[in-house]
Amino acid sequence: MGGSIDRAETAYDASTPVGRHAELLRRLDGRIDRKAMLAGDDVGDGYRGDATDERGERPLIVFRPSSATEVSAILAECNRLGQPVVVQGGRTGLAGGARPRAGEVSLSLERMTNLSAVDGDTATVVAEAGVTLQSVQEAAASRGLLFGVDIGARGTSTVGGNAATNAGGIRVLRYGMYRSQVLGLEAVLADGSILTSLKGLPKDNSGFDLNQIFVGSEGALGVVTRACLRLHPAPRSQANAFCGLPSLAAAVALLKHLRAALGPSLSAFEVIFPNVYDGVLSLTGAQPPVAASAGMYALVEMQGQDEARDQECFSEALMACYQSGIVTDVAVSGSLREYHAIWKLREAASEFIFSMDHVSGFDVSLPLSNMQAFLDSADGEIAAADPDAAIYIFGHLGDGNLHFLVRTHHHERIADIVLAVVIRSNGAISAEHGIGLDKKKWLPLCRSAAEMRAMRRLKTAFDPNNILNPGRVFDMPSPVASERA
Amino acid sequence: MGGSIDRAETAYDASTPVGRHAELLRRLDGRIDRKAMLAGDDVGDGYRGDATDERGERPLIVFRPSSATEVSAILAECNRLGQPVVVQGGRTGLAGGARPRAGEVSLSLERMTNLSAVDGDTATVVAEAGVTLQSVQEAAASRGLLFGVDIGARGTSTVGGNAATNAGGIRVLRYGMYRSQVLGLEAVLADGSILTSLKGLPKDNSGFDLNQIFVGSEGALGVVTRACLRLHPAPRSQANAFCGLPSLAAAVALLKHLRAALGPSLSAFEVIFPNVYDGVLSLTGAQPPVAASAGMYALVEMQGQDEARDQECFSEALMACYQSGIVTDVAVSGSLREYHAIWKLREAASEFIFSMDHVSGFDVSLPLSNMQAFLDSADGEIAAADPDAAIYIFGHLGDGNLHFLVRTHHHERIADIVLAVVIRSNGAISAEHGIGLDKKKWLPLCRSAAEMRAMRRLKTAFDPNNILNPGRVFDMPSPVASERA
Repeated sequence: MGGSIDRAETAYDASTPVGRHAELLRRLDGRIDRKAMLAGDDVGDGYRGDATDERGERPLIVFRPSSATEVSAILAECNRLGQPVVVQGGRTGLAGGARPRAGEVSLSLERMTNLSAVDGDTATVVAEAGVTLQSVQEAAASRGLLFGVDIGARGTSTVGGNAATNAGGIRVLRYGMYRSQVLGLEAVLADGSILTSLKGLPKDNSGFDLNQIFVGSEGALGVVTRACLRLHPAPRSQANAFCGLPSLAAAVALLKHLRAALGPSLSAFEVIFPNVYDGVLSLTGAQPPVAASAGMYALVEMQGQDEARDQECFSEALMACYQSGIVTDVAVSGSLREYHAIWKLREAASEFIFSMDHVSGFDVSLPLSNMQAFLDSADGEIAAADPDAAIYIFGHLGDGNLHFLVRTHHHERIADIVLAVVIRSNGAISAEHGIGLDKKKWLPLCRSAAEMRAMRRLKTAFDPNNILNPGRVFDMPSPVASERA
Repeated sequence: MGGSIDRAETAYDASTPVGRHAELLRRLDGRIDRKAMLAGDDVGDGYRGDATDERGERPLIVFRPSSATEVSAILAECNRLGQPVVVQGGRTGLAGGARPRAGEVSLSLERMTNLSAVDGDTATVVAEAGVTLQSVQEAAASRGLLFGVDIGARGTSTVGGNAATNAGGIRVLRYGMYRSQVLGLEAVLADGSILTSLKGLPKDNSGFDLNQIFVGSEGALGVVTRACLRLHPAPRSQANAFCGLPSLAAAVALLKHLRAALGPSLSAFEVIFPNVYDGVLSLTGAQPPVAASAGMYALVEMQGQDEARDQECFSEALMACYQSGIVTDVAVSGSLREYHAIWKLREAASEFIFSMDHVSGFDVSLPLSNMQAFLDSADGEIAAADPDAAIYIFGHLGDGNLHFLVRTHHHERIADIVLAVVIRSNGAISAEHGIGLDKKKWLPLCRSAAEMRAMRRLKTAFDPNNILNPGRVFDMPSPVASERA
């Protein structure tokens, strides 16, 4: 360990990227499947980016290992050579974490797609890093169980990236973040150490829970290669409703009422602001479930086990809010078709945003009690900075999480404004998307100097040569050795 | 930082414990409230131990700070002097983590008892480390909310210790471990750095989640001084039942059936083995809720939001299991009095165990599918080693967690046997009690060399001089500096 790099075995000139890559391949020769590597023109454009518009450098090599042992061999040699590595999963991130930088090789987990049989007794499944979220969901469903996380990128995003970024989505209110689904991980450290903790025990206080360190680490502390995931009983009844409300305050009141009335059966609580609802209706041509004249829209979902009674309970709770004026208009799904149609509206909110150019996206969370004040301040300051800017908002109100989008030609300035107001409002500058490359400028504004130092200590402890996703989340002082003085 | 200890300002001979303590007091003079310190004969016997029978050394000084700033000053000076510190909360631990060792000073959080007002909108409360679990529960209840963790030591154990040991208890099945309740922490590192993360946002992926590192760290990585805790809607209906069953396999089948039928409304699932049930009945003289002739006993609890229907649902689910023969006898609570009487039986199981001498306690968890085989092996091997040994079992079957107790005069030998069988069965040697001093001998048997190294890296990163709860969980090589070579 330490900041120094072992160059004893170097046959090529490892001080240049090209020489280092050649040396890396020489050292790995015979230890990993060469057919599973891509280099030069074989590296497709997909490896240059994530779900953002920006494209990074083309990695000189893409390693596509099929086992933790191969991952270990690759990382150990990269570590010895000081070779920076970008870790790639489904590349659906929105913060640039998987976007390659100059000189990096890519470690793509795409070929690690084994999924164990679901264990029905313990309600768990073990999945390799490259398994898609949707495959996990489907495996659970095939055994009468449910996986608690759902996000739009379910068909492409993968277990490794979901765990490494602590994915959120629409059912955090009920099932928690991805962290809550992780009963165990296998992760490979920069030096090639393989940490395997896949017993899947819901209670295990036998020493430090190292898994927690990798969840949400954005690949900067280790590479997740497998996960043991918690599954839940599948709901026996499910319904949703689309509501028109006078205001955000009414939506917060509705949330509070439904939480108390439905407890854990309240499984999602989303909001769509009026201009996004208008946009969705004109984009999709869908029949509006409620009139487009409200001050706020909410999508609420119930999942329960009592088929005989759940739907009635759900409707009663909504009707009580209608009678008290919290809700001014409500459409409850009466069939599976209506249920899906309502969710489709919510998913179309993202499509509507992606249909526009020059949109700066912010994924923020706020204490519910500060949310209106945040919106008022942000609105005022954005208008002052760019009178032509338009604000579009939707998101997971149940978790205090808004996707706050601004159509503007002044991205940096607007970002500085929005995130400063978030921080002043005691909010989070990234609720679920992470920091990656694109938000790291603002991280020191919302985390204390002591926290930044503690994060760097952690980085140094697990990746002393700074080879794993370097420059993501935060920069390390260079050379690394100075951090240890 | 680093392994060396700054002795520049030393006026007393800090190479002896007495000189070091005097020097420590000199340096802290005027910076912390001297009245809040205990020394010499003022240090009561309570500070010598935890809830186990063993007593440790009497600490020469007990620091009782009233703020994170005071904690910071104390730790910073202890760190400079290389003064080992035992961190004490409610001292209800069962693994010796808070039992002082020779030369240690105690840092007791007992005076940090501030509890914020409950925030009803966000359903959170902020509590200082010394607040009891019961105070948190009561604060939540006073606002129509519920705190998800409950353990027998609720009146004495405290927030700091609960967080540092990732407390478990009877409702993990429904609400998760203590970790799941922690939305934020304030923790002080060995060098005095204060990490404050108390926004209480359910979704926050803005950089590494440092809180996770301290939960379950047993005070070895930092001292928890405050926590922002998640609260849940209070259940509107609640019932429990006591069941007689033919076997453990039937109890597992009942668990599976109830999880599917009740989903998150199943809030507790406990088992009591026959000889413990007999002991409880004769200890308490209680009227047996079900005849004492079954092969296994289970206590199950439901918490729901639908007063009109929950009790019926719960009874229906149990009756289905009675009709299919999974359950052979069942008493469902029909009143609050009966509800409490049933819980009292479960709590009496601990009292029954404590009423006996020479009982070695193991707090283990196992995959449900391996549990019977574990019991069979343990039974056989214990009988072979000590024909007079008697085994008593009860615990949280819903979490795969058994309190496995052996009455024997051969503690060490039995411990080696039981924990070896646990490890062979892919179980955890400590489900909820932690490792502390008393289980550390077995930790390297259930965690890989790579995991042990990673835990030590973490310790070195956050407590390079090894002053915080040293020797708990695992030993560090001495001197610490050699770890960094």
